[in-house]
Amino acid sequence: MIVALLVAAAAVADPLPSWTDGAGKKSIIDFVDRVTREGSADYLASRERIAVFDNDGTLWIEQPMYVQFAFALDRIKTLAPLHPEWRTTAPFKDVLNGDSKALLSSGTHALLQVIAGSHSGMSTEDFSTIVGSWLATAKHPRFQRPYTSLAYQPMLELLDYLRSQGFKTFIVSGGGVEFMRVFAEQVYDIPPEQAIGSSAATKFVAVGTNGKPALLKEPQIEFVNDGPGKPSGINRFIGRRPVLAFGNSDGDLQMLQWTAGGAGPSFVALIHHTDAEREYAYDRNSTIGKLDKALDEAQRQRWLVVDMKRDWQPIFAEYQGAR
Amino acid sequence: MIVALLVAAAAVADPLPSWTDGAGKKSIIDFVDRVTREGSADYLASRERIAVFDNDGTLWIEQPMYVQFAFALDRIKTLAPLHPEWRTTAPFKDVLNGDSKALLSSGTHALLQVIAGSHSGMSTEDFSTIVGSWLATAKHPRFQRPYTSLAYQPMLELLDYLRSQGFKTFIVSGGGVEFMRVFAEQVYDIPPEQAIGSSAATKFVAVGTNGKPALLKEPQIEFVNDGPGKPSGINRFIGRRPVLAFGNSDGDLQMLQWTAGGAGPSFVALIHHTDAEREYAYDRNSTIGKLDKALDEAQRQRWLVVDMKRDWQPIFAEYQGAR
Repeated sequence: MIVALLVAAAAVADPLPSWTDGAGKKSIIDFVDRVTREGSADYLASRERIAVFDNDGTLWIEQPMYVQFAFALDRIKTLAPLHPEWRTTAPFKDVLNGDSKALLSSGTHALLQVIAGSHSGMSTEDFSTIVGSWLATAKHPRFQRPYTSLAYQPMLELLDYLRSQGFKTFIVSGGGVEFMRVFAEQVYDIPPEQAIGSSAATKFVAVGTNGKPALLKEPQIEFVNDGPGKPSGINRFIGRRPVLAFGNSDGDLQMLQWTAGGAGPSFVALIHHTDAEREYAYDRNSTIGKLDKALDEAQRQRWLVVDMKRDWQPIFAEYQGAR
Repeated sequence: MIVALLVAAAAVADPLPSWTDGAGKKSIIDFVDRVTREGSADYLASRERIAVFDNDGTLWIEQPMYVQFAFALDRIKTLAPLHPEWRTTAPFKDVLNGDSKALLSSGTHALLQVIAGSHSGMSTEDFSTIVGSWLATAKHPRFQRPYTSLAYQPMLELLDYLRSQGFKTFIVSGGGVEFMRVFAEQVYDIPPEQAIGSSAATKFVAVGTNGKPALLKEPQIEFVNDGPGKPSGINRFIGRRPVLAFGNSDGDLQMLQWTAGGAGPSFVALIHHTDAEREYAYDRNSTIGKLDKALDEAQRQRWLVVDMKRDWQPIFAEYQGAR
């Protein structure tokens, strides 16, 4: 009975049970307390409590390739019968031959062709349906479970904790916004209007294929929300400077600098992938999620660097089987 | 005593006291009831209750010129001493000579030059400060009161009413988003992240003039949120189709079509400026706020057309003097 009470008290007292007790976890809770306790010198009104999170590698897995890119490759294969010319044209033939080495060495333009070929030519609503179906069946090659089950449990707790303390949580990702929105509400409890990402142009047609107005997804990239694009994206979509930001790669550096550079209190952190056994270990020389300059800056500025192996107890929630 | 009680009861019962009782007001309240009453066939979960509003001419005055353009002209005059070349170069010389006829006939490119000349070359934060100072002192040429006091009282009531019923209210304007955000929170209780508008590019610099990271406003237009751009903007920023939309001009047509074209219940309305005495009367032939095709479409589709003269009791809140 006393044990049960103690366990209950601990559960109430610890908003971040999957985080290892230590300086990192303590610094997060201290910051939240400092900006939410009335009378505190650093108190922030609720509307100022803007928290931003990179997605790939910060909220969910990004190895061995971005989930969205895995989707794009599968989609190209699905569409191949409609495009016989792809059999002989790079980069599509590399996709169809499973030659990821040729593909990855073929440069940005080729990768954008793969994205355009798999992400355009349908309405926004059809695209959401296609992504939803794919997420329901696709599995991560190593963990053999759905990608949506590979969000980081400690980060899900952090999102919940911040929202319980009046923060508004946003995704600020280099990934495509329409891809993320399909799962962000279900997995992160983040509504579409709080997901910021890269986007392609859309075109309004008053009469779509179903006789109703539609927005058609076009192949042209409209905005790249990465690197210095992240502060611009934050400004464009949120219009207020965040006070808390988490990222994991050099593409997040400017977002972290922008957040840390505000006039008031701020909290900035990097997730450092250090656990090859339970997830992946990579940083300065990685093609995906390269963390080099931002790691140096974090050390200079004394930002929190989360050591995944040491600081996170479970990395993923237990997988309950088919969703 | 009984009178006081009756008045109090009426105040509680009527969420739109500045709207004339009639079919228009009733249709708004009926729609809100229909989508918020549990058990109703048209019930919408709170997260689906997305309401979008054009700004100029829908939420506040847009005659005799867009407020933002009045700001741009004043700003060009303020900056003129730093730009002696403007004295002899169109369109700037027309601005400085007060030759609005020459200015308005000089085409889109010239107007964009005026916007670029007045809206770029400073940080986003400095721009907000400049706009805030201007709004605090500038007066509308006819009404001789601050522009922020010329929001439409019936629309302020509608925004409040919708929010009290679990709607999330957004501005979706052709105007510049950074200009609107300066007053949208104070005047409409709409936070920056719920204001969508046209935007120019911004550039991140790690070390701004005050030694801290800054976003510099650049002259290039990045996105025009007008006409068919409005559904694209809604998709990009909100990622969900609205269920309620108010506009007042042909620039709002596609936003209204997009809202009305959803699978579920929707409510779409136009504000028709019919009151030359208390505000302005204009529609099919107006340069600013032209309402022609959208008026025809509203009649065809039986959308609500608000007759400002008949449907709105006060148009503006009583002006209390200096803010």
